[in-house]
Amino acid sequence: MGESWSFLDTAESNFRPLVVIELAKGTKEETIEWFTKRIVDKKADGGAQLLIKPLVTENGVENIYLVGASHLRLLLGAETVGLVKECSDNSMRTFTYSSRKTFKHFADDNHDFLTMAECQYIIKHELENLRAKNEKIIPGYPQAKLYPGKSIVRRLLTSGILVQIFPLHDREELKKLSHSWYGRVKVGYQPLDDIRCYFGETIALYFGFLEYFTFALIPMAVIGIPYYVFAWEDYDKYVMFATFNLLWSTVILEVWKRMCAILTYRWGTLLMKRQFEEPRPGFHGVLGINPVTGREEPVYSSIKRQLRIYLVSLPFVCLCLYFSLYVMMIYFDLEQWALDYHKENESNFSSLMLYVPSIIYAIVIEIMNRIYRYAAEFLTSWENHRLESSYQNHLILKVLVFNFLNCFASLFYIAFVLFDMKLLRQSLATLLITSQILNQFAESLLPYWLQKRYNRRMKKRMCSRKTDTDLSVAEQVNMEKEMGTYLGTFDDYLELFLQFGYVSLFSCVYPLAAVFAVLNNITEIYSDALKMCRVYKRPFAEPTASIGVWQLAFETMSVISVVTNCILIGMSPEVDALFPDSKMDLVLTVALVEHLLLAIKFIMAFVIPDKPREIQMKLAKLEFESLEALKQQVRAFQMQFHFLLIHH
Amino acid sequence: MGESWSFLDTAESNFRPLVVIELAKGTKEETIEWFTKRIVDKKADGGAQLLIKPLVTENGVENIYLVGASHLRLLLGAETVGLVKECSDNSMRTFTYSSRKTFKHFADDNHDFLTMAECQYIIKHELENLRAKNEKIIPGYPQAKLYPGKSIVRRLLTSGILVQIFPLHDREELKKLSHSWYGRVKVGYQPLDDIRCYFGETIALYFGFLEYFTFALIPMAVIGIPYYVFAWEDYDKYVMFATFNLLWSTVILEVWKRMCAILTYRWGTLLMKRQFEEPRPGFHGVLGINPVTGREEPVYSSIKRQLRIYLVSLPFVCLCLYFSLYVMMIYFDLEQWALDYHKENESNFSSLMLYVPSIIYAIVIEIMNRIYRYAAEFLTSWENHRLESSYQNHLILKVLVFNFLNCFASLFYIAFVLFDMKLLRQSLATLLITSQILNQFAESLLPYWLQKRYNRRMKKRMCSRKTDTDLSVAEQVNMEKEMGTYLGTFDDYLELFLQFGYVSLFSCVYPLAAVFAVLNNITEIYSDALKMCRVYKRPFAEPTASIGVWQLAFETMSVISVVTNCILIGMSPEVDALFPDSKMDLVLTVALVEHLLLAIKFIMAFVIPDKPREIQMKLAKLEFESLEALKQQVRAFQMQFHFLLIHH
Repeated sequence: MGESWSFLDTAESNFRPLVVIELAKGTKEETIEWFTKRIVDKKADGGAQLLIKPLVTENGVENIYLVGASHLRLLLGAETVGLVKECSDNSMRTFTYSSRKTFKHFADDNHDFLTMAECQYIIKHELENLRAKNEKIIPGYPQAKLYPGKSIVRRLLTSGILVQIFPLHDREELKKLSHSWYGRVKVGYQPLDDIRCYFGETIALYFGFLEYFTFALIPMAVIGIPYYVFAWEDYDKYVMFATFNLLWSTVILEVWKRMCAILTYRWGTLLMKRQFEEPRPGFHGVLGINPVTGREEPVYSSIKRQLRIYLVSLPFVCLCLYFSLYVMMIYFDLEQWALDYHKENESNFSSLMLYVPSIIYAIVIEIMNRIYRYAAEFLTSWENHRLESSYQNHLILKVLVFNFLNCFASLFYIAFVLFDMKLLRQSLATLLITSQILNQFAESLLPYWLQKRYNRRMKKRMCSRKTDTDLSVAEQVNMEKEMGTYLGTFDDYLELFLQFGYVSLFSCVYPLAAVFAVLNNITEIYSDALKMCRVYKRPFAEPTASIGVWQLAFETMSVISVVTNCILIGMSPEVDALFPDSKMDLVLTVALVEHLLLAIKFIMAFVIPDKPREIQMKLAKLEFESLEALKQQVRAFQMQFHFLLIHH
Repeated sequence: MGESWSFLDTAESNFRPLVVIELAKGTKEETIEWFTKRIVDKKADGGAQLLIKPLVTENGVENIYLVGASHLRLLLGAETVGLVKECSDNSMRTFTYSSRKTFKHFADDNHDFLTMAECQYIIKHELENLRAKNEKIIPGYPQAKLYPGKSIVRRLLTSGILVQIFPLHDREELKKLSHSWYGRVKVGYQPLDDIRCYFGETIALYFGFLEYFTFALIPMAVIGIPYYVFAWEDYDKYVMFATFNLLWSTVILEVWKRMCAILTYRWGTLLMKRQFEEPRPGFHGVLGINPVTGREEPVYSSIKRQLRIYLVSLPFVCLCLYFSLYVMMIYFDLEQWALDYHKENESNFSSLMLYVPSIIYAIVIEIMNRIYRYAAEFLTSWENHRLESSYQNHLILKVLVFNFLNCFASLFYIAFVLFDMKLLRQSLATLLITSQILNQFAESLLPYWLQKRYNRRMKKRMCSRKTDTDLSVAEQVNMEKEMGTYLGTFDDYLELFLQFGYVSLFSCVYPLAAVFAVLNNITEIYSDALKMCRVYKRPFAEPTASIGVWQLAFETMSVISVVTNCILIGMSPEVDALFPDSKMDLVLTVALVEHLLLAIKFIMAFVIPDKPREIQMKLAKLEFESLEALKQQVRAFQMQFHFLLIHH
């Protein structure tokens, strides 16, 4: 425990710190001893067989530990988690230690075969799968109960002994990545493969989607500009724009699935087998037998959960929706008041005042969204879902419904109750722009500024003549452990989802929305990149094969936008003028067009294959090979029975 | 070759004839010798390792062969095809020979462990997978080319040397089955498990669906009867009926998925792994390398196929659709003529004449459907699809689009162009009832009558004092080989699909349709059962896990029916009267209700899980076990490297 870090660094060149474990201050010695022993214990004895070292700083021992693993251990771990890597023949295959020689860039001394993010993911997986054997409690903490098979790390986390586990940044790599990512002003794609190597697939896929979505919006933006510049208000031009928008939004969502398949095939996650889902850390219940695994673990009755969902969560969400509508009505009162004020005292100030209610309302919407977010998290966690995926689905559903109503209810009201297209355009513009500014500020710039101030203070405290890359491990760990934790891509996707709503729901009224969206997304790429590289702790890589439920959310939004746009076009005075005799004909025509567009959308979604032909072929080839291998096995087995068969 | 059958029957009690192979008359001796040798050859030598005996009748050798297999061979074959059977602990598992003892009812001397249908399926699979080794041609037929890996049986079939392969009936079992199925008039379910054992999963699933669908229609029929009896014409009652119908049709389709999962789980096909699809027998092309398998096999350019589809098939289908609409217009002329005639000479005869055009039109529709069916088959086969599934999908799409338009175009025209609800009701009733009568006649009664006449002649020729079950194998084979071939469930599902259209598309105009559908389906069950047991050759069992594309077809129909019913209700004079001031409000309300119903439908489809919780748990358990087994394997492997790890 007394060795200094410089010694360890040189003497054990093998040990590369990958993951940091921070225990609570004052954790009992016996607990630490037991925990570190379990981590280094051999697999055969139920340990994780990893390497662990205490971090010794100038202030002495701080209950911070660095975890690493030998190269061989990491390779075996890669097999356990089912990593898919590229073979020498350019096909993607599940890595196994015995077939390691067939993989591209594999050499026994090539320690870069696994990326650092992969190594950290493997270590996280091994730590999380370190399970209690016969321990009934965590030594030293009799109130922290264990049962055979319970993940030790999860219990340590829930009982507060373990403060956090996080992967270390690689200052060298990070510098390279941030330079090529956002360091220089350039026109071009993001280094998605590098991002994936450093941050893992989930985050790389988000940035891939953000980039793709921005490019996809450009045609809409380009077509939208002349509408603003020349103040086109003709009916046929609007219809053209809206129709283009609707078909385009279907196409881009379908094409994204193909792009996503290409990316995740290259990254290997498209082929990765789903791991069996363990209960989420917060899940609690009485000990019982899990009917699926047959193991003893906490069991929570599904009926109780249903009751919580339908008797508490559902009414609460409805109440929030009602409250949101109530706030909206206040906004319309304010709007009316501003209008009256403007009429009474016609001045520059009063015309500026016209925008104030919208801006205030946009800010209030953002605040309500954020508060609701916390409430939704609390409620969903209280619903006590067993699996993380089920928790996520319930959370996303709650948040999406509320945010959709909160953001768009006023616009729907203006469009379909007040029939005020001018107000709709003004309101849409104010909401969109205000929310974009607020988001950029709250998400990236504010944390960046706070982080920068903190870093300056930290450096002052330490002897700070060094640059970032020269920091000792101890200094690096101390700096990074204070950084904020990146909570996943949820908020980022949600922002894009709402933006997609602003752009597509009322596209025929405000073609300029796409322009603002493109501009916002370009800065968003930079600020999100900055956020990932400078503001937050490095997140653990998370393999993923798609953007999951967000695909469905975006598709639903594009279906809703067909309906709203058709109604808006039908309501425009130019279209009205086309049917001077009968409003009936107008409505019937609009309804017919809407149904046709919806039918075309569904047919297009059905006809465009989700995976490009090339990827389909590669997948078919892999499937064929595995079936052949199985057949070979059966055949080999049958050969052995050959003798039996003859004499039967 | 000279041994008589009675000798073989007693001496080789082991040999049970399962499958009949009929070669063309005058097939060369050398070909027969080579083919039978390949069939009996050992697996290790590339043979099928089956048993084969020539069938000797009074007329001497007729190039008919009986194929069987030893019990052990069948068990090994069950492993090859991946059969899933029930274990002693009631779970379903993929059968392997090494784990055979763990399966329910398994005993080395229990020859009923595999059902006869399964044995025949295994033999069919083994015969189809009997592949050419180094043969370049079929011996004796230089024009019948072979290449390594080509299925011999498929080449023999396509070059006309092999006339047919069919499984033998089991007279004993068939008698039992037909007695419990349709032999006595009873109220109750069909013996689906017995049907599955005898005819395989695809056919059992069709009968399961037919039965389920009939039961599901009963509530609609019950609610529909009072509308007819009391001649209810109130607006609110129609709306209630239509709304109930729409939601009900969604519910029954969702619940069917669950029922289907329960059935196929019990039958093991839900868990059965998909086999790699070989090219369909009719597929041809120049020899090339298949990029997926790397094998040499016929390759046909995808572009050529696309050209055939878009430049020939698509215009042809459009032409047929146009022709169908043309015929429809002739029908309306006839209708007008009949009406005029009735007005001129008001008599009983003339009022009967009113129904004649509809009846003629219904008959013409049926004839056109059947002719088109042949054309579609020819065209799809000419498109030269590589896989049977792709062929089927293109065929089904072609047939569905045409049949839908052909059957319903006149009804749509009457409803939405002529606005004649009385004619719609009359037309719908005539079409529905006529098509049902024609179908029952053409599908079952006619073939049954022909078959019966033929059987009588056959029996007269043979010494015919025996009953069916006492027939010798030779007599049985000779009788069965002349029976018609059952061409799959396509036509049966299509009939149900069109019936579903008649019932749901215009349900609010003619509530009695469901009653006729129920009556038809009850007789349909009996006539289809009769057809399967008495008219056709026994078909090979075909494992399947769902009704496939038909689920989608039925769901699409139920979406279309939401639209048509909403329009119909909106058009009714009673609803009109509710909005005396503004037709606009009426149309808007109808549109709103329609969108709400569609939204409810989609949400219901999304919320109702496709598999019952119980099945989900069982599947999760199996998945967990296989993942655990994999983990164990990896762990065992890692143990071996334990030594290495320490010294690394």
